Amino acid sequence: MTEVRIGFVLFPGVTALDAVGPYEVLSRVPGARVFWLAGEVGAVAAQGGLGLEADTPFEECPPLNVICVPGGPGQAGAMDDPRLLAFLRQQAETADWITAVCTGSLVLGAAGLLRGYRATTHWRFRDCLADLGALPLDKRVVCDRNRVTAAGVSAGIDMALALVAKLADERTARAIQLGIEYDPAPPFDSGSAWTAEEDLKAEALRRVL
Amino acid sequence: MTEVRIGFVLFPGVTALDAVGPYEVLSRVPGARVFWLAGEVGAVAAQGGLGLEADTPFEECPPLNVICVPGGPGQAGAMDDPRLLAFLRQQAETADWITAVCTGSLVLGAAGLLRGYRATTHWRFRDCLADLGALPLDKRVVCDRNRVTAAGVSAGIDMALALVAKLADERTARAIQLGIEYDPAPPFDSGSAWTAEEDLKAEALRRVL
Repeated sequence: MTEVRIGFVLFPGVTALDAVGPYEVLSRVPGARVFWLAGEVGAVAAQGGLGLEADTPFEECPPLNVICVPGGPGQAGAMDDPRLLAFLRQQAETADWITAVCTGSLVLGAAGLLRGYRATTHWRFRDCLADLGALPLDKRVVCDRNRVTAAGVSAGIDMALALVAKLADERTARAIQLGIEYDPAPPFDSGSAWTAEEDLKAEALRRVL
Repeated sequence: MTEVRIGFVLFPGVTALDAVGPYEVLSRVPGARVFWLAGEVGAVAAQGGLGLEADTPFEECPPLNVICVPGGPGQAGAMDDPRLLAFLRQQAETADWITAVCTGSLVLGAAGLLRGYRATTHWRFRDCLADLGALPLDKRVVCDRNRVTAAGVSAGIDMALALVAKLADERTARAIQLGIEYDPAPPFDSGSAWTAEEDLKAEALRRVL
């Protein structure tokens, strides 16, 4: 079976679900081999304090088939990290799919990898994509050539299922969806910034960012 | 602000999303303080290899307001771990909410904490709940008195949002839902075992368990 190398980039203040949502989907692709990437091996403190273990330093990562950049409040630091950005640029030359979740799109943009591409990110930051040369769309998942970007945090699950249909096939994507019982039933109808009132948006940003 | 102590139990072979989904929701509750619990401090290898850092040994954990037991293929080992089960029983005496995601419900059941309670778990294991004295329901989230259980993997996000409405209030739950942009739009309609064909169910179990 052909190996499918999938790398998740970690940085301090990453939002764990941005990475772990797609991980639970993509790691089930036939042949998947996952790399957790950072400057050094060891625990990286995600938003809220959870430690996620990086197992591969950037310099030791083989060419990836799929790069996934999660977001989180640490995204500003990641956008200023020359090693991380150089790693993304180098991998992007050969990767099949270059993906991001939430404000991970801004990190891809800072690496110059979204110039001229349609893309999305967390609703609060969608306008910022234009400053990085991307064409922001108000969509949950955007695929433009080999760039695939997702809206805020939880949207990475939807993105990853769509990507499995491309990496493998739709039946595999459906089997993984069933396996993780992804038949969502949020108890409230408040997940969309399109329909949210301004004061709820303000509270959402206070609580989550 | 009153501290709300929330503990996630880790064990080798835990499914990361079972824990990280509720974590991204519950850690935003006003006053939340999160504990990642295991026999020892350090990295615990989740299903697929991701290392999640335990920061608190069972014996050093203060009384929790919320206990969350995730599932995963390591659940069988967890059900046989006397320290883990004793920890759950002891915490359950004073906790406000005793919760589980996916096959974490079987671990709660093995600790004797679901006897006579309505509960749910991953669709493949729902019948097993009856062997542990619980009353299985085919629902995504089940709340019976202070036991709150969720169906497979991704259902922990829905469970946690419902729980925030009880722990804090509905407005806080809605703000968190908006903050993590949880307006799910799966690209396929294959997440429910009710409507899935038998051969897709077989493939789902091969890929995910």
